[in-house]
Amino acid sequence: MKNFSFNAPTNLVFGKGSVSELPKLIEGKYKKILLHYGGGSIKKNGVYDDVINALDGLDIEVFELGGVKPNPKLSLVRKGVELVKKEGIDLILAVGGGSSIDSSKAIALGAMSDIDVWDYFMRKAEPEKALDVGVVLTIPATGSEASMGTVITNEKESLKLSVNHPMLRPQFAIMDPEYTLSLPKEQTFAGVMDILSHIFERYFTSVKNVELTDALAEATMRTVIDNAYRLLEDPNDYNARAEIMLSGTIAHNGLLGIGRVDDWASHGLGHQLSALYGTTHGVSLAIMFPAWMKYVYRNNLEIFNKFAINVFGVMDIGKSAEHIALEGIKEFEDFLRDIDLPTTFSAAEIPTNEIERMATAAVIHGSLGNLRKITKEDAINIYNLAE
Amino acid sequence: MKNFSFNAPTNLVFGKGSVSELPKLIEGKYKKILLHYGGGSIKKNGVYDDVINALDGLDIEVFELGGVKPNPKLSLVRKGVELVKKEGIDLILAVGGGSSIDSSKAIALGAMSDIDVWDYFMRKAEPEKALDVGVVLTIPATGSEASMGTVITNEKESLKLSVNHPMLRPQFAIMDPEYTLSLPKEQTFAGVMDILSHIFERYFTSVKNVELTDALAEATMRTVIDNAYRLLEDPNDYNARAEIMLSGTIAHNGLLGIGRVDDWASHGLGHQLSALYGTTHGVSLAIMFPAWMKYVYRNNLEIFNKFAINVFGVMDIGKSAEHIALEGIKEFEDFLRDIDLPTTFSAAEIPTNEIERMATAAVIHGSLGNLRKITKEDAINIYNLAE
Repeated sequence: MKNFSFNAPTNLVFGKGSVSELPKLIEGKYKKILLHYGGGSIKKNGVYDDVINALDGLDIEVFELGGVKPNPKLSLVRKGVELVKKEGIDLILAVGGGSSIDSSKAIALGAMSDIDVWDYFMRKAEPEKALDVGVVLTIPATGSEASMGTVITNEKESLKLSVNHPMLRPQFAIMDPEYTLSLPKEQTFAGVMDILSHIFERYFTSVKNVELTDALAEATMRTVIDNAYRLLEDPNDYNARAEIMLSGTIAHNGLLGIGRVDDWASHGLGHQLSALYGTTHGVSLAIMFPAWMKYVYRNNLEIFNKFAINVFGVMDIGKSAEHIALEGIKEFEDFLRDIDLPTTFSAAEIPTNEIERMATAAVIHGSLGNLRKITKEDAINIYNLAE
Repeated sequence: MKNFSFNAPTNLVFGKGSVSELPKLIEGKYKKILLHYGGGSIKKNGVYDDVINALDGLDIEVFELGGVKPNPKLSLVRKGVELVKKEGIDLILAVGGGSSIDSSKAIALGAMSDIDVWDYFMRKAEPEKALDVGVVLTIPATGSEASMGTVITNEKESLKLSVNHPMLRPQFAIMDPEYTLSLPKEQTFAGVMDILSHIFERYFTSVKNVELTDALAEATMRTVIDNAYRLLEDPNDYNARAEIMLSGTIAHNGLLGIGRVDDWASHGLGHQLSALYGTTHGVSLAIMFPAWMKYVYRNNLEIFNKFAINVFGVMDIGKSAEHIALEGIKEFEDFLRDIDLPTTFSAAEIPTNEIERMATAAVIHGSLGNLRKITKEDAINIYNLAE
């Protein structure tokens, strides 16, 4: 186990009707609140009304900024920063999924500083202060509701960059699984893959003697997979939605990575699919992870054996370590197919004629990952495995 | 799953040599620090010197108050409160185990108020403010380094009472597993039982649909048990000490109880053994838990089956649920005997002629527990099962 520092200060306010806790979280602490959200869905499914009703009668002023899009844009962040500064807003309340939360975090960062917010993403400045962010979560996937990261796209310069800092962890996250019952199937299971990916990027490490976090990660993976199957049968299963929602937060608040070394190569490879073909993040991960696993499993047969045995119940008697590892990866691919996610370029109808270009872009800042350092040549090989 | 609110703000600073992080945690934030500790051990094993050396050269004033005893005493807490008020101390740094931490938390509570600190324990006043507490942990057991509770003994009135409040969570906990290498065998394994008990009190609930926390709790229990066996073979195994230390924090920071209902009947029963015979806390739990389990397992056969199968690997094929549950309890008793903890009154050389008196005292404030409400009659039956 490596030395580490870890805390998880975000107050998770979880369960049916938990939006009614909003007044307690806000009153006496904040005076001017910016609701920040995407567009249609929260107005259609009643979440927007719930939030407005919960805030009704409080001694606060409420501002609104909608229009967040997937891959949240710098231009809207800048607009938010301006609004927050002008009005003296003291809390940004993200209502939605990862995009609304990431956009809120970026506004929170820009609003407390005189320099342009993009400078933080370009590493020209170190974050020193950020406004408080609260969350009403509607999509379990990115884990941004309790994480310290934000990813913003500079659409003019075609750059997608992140800032990670403890002060970007939201103060609180209202998590009502009922808000996720109306999620379409594709979004539900792309979210499931996103959640699993956050565990994978921490689980598959070469660091030894990390038994507790191995076991906690395996427990969370099994729970996600079990409950994904339940949602396949009945998308209205509140209990399954609750397990997935809670797992999504635990997957990415950092707990499962303590004492380990994160990887993130598969994310780096998948981002290129999204950049070139607009592939949904979760789908890009469903394509890249099986290929990455097949390429790197020999770098730590032991952890891939644990994955096979402890997550998928692969029987190990009379089998070589190699055989067990491959059986685990196959089980994972079968699971992805069961939840109707494509696991190859061809299944996702993505052409394969730009692999060289994607590989070049993937390693533009140096090799990817840690379990195995992925060079451009490795990236080409992995993309080829995913054809 | 029940609705819940949860956060875990304590900064865990974990690993070999982590005491060297102390200056970063203190500088610029605190000016006057009270070191609060027990007696001999930290001066013998070098922990005291490490802390003093780490603080050396900082622009702070250091005060000291030693003499914390097991079952920390109100009289010393009052002395601490007086000192902190007089000197304007702004951080209490507990160096030691649960007793030093609990005593520090109580001082932190009393120091910020004009009323007598014991009033908070008597529920005559609600905590409103508390001074910051930091921890250098030397004994993995109570989990107080990241919990919101403190238990103090009023020696004049023979009362042992607790205060639980989020503001009592320490700001940071330095956790160096090397500091635990010198722990005597009895203390190591009483600590192991204490850690397991914190998981048990959350795990054995009648709340349904708590799959993630079931699995996280089982993962933590298995890790504690595996590594206890490793320490039995080699008390100097750093990796095993690290797993136990980290598990001790996770066991009691509240994560494993989210969405569930805690029990705490076994703690209530065990406290009477400590009160009458001075039985070590962990030992009293090793005696009470097997008896409590045998008495209540029919109230939730399903969770006792999960315990047997998922923690101890009991094979379930061809066995009744009752059989599986009892086999799990037996496995747990075998484990306790393996780590040389007594599991009965007789093994601990405790007389059985005061059972009526202990049962009366145990339920003096009403029935105990939640999985099954333990009345005085139940308490007598459980004590008898433990003979």
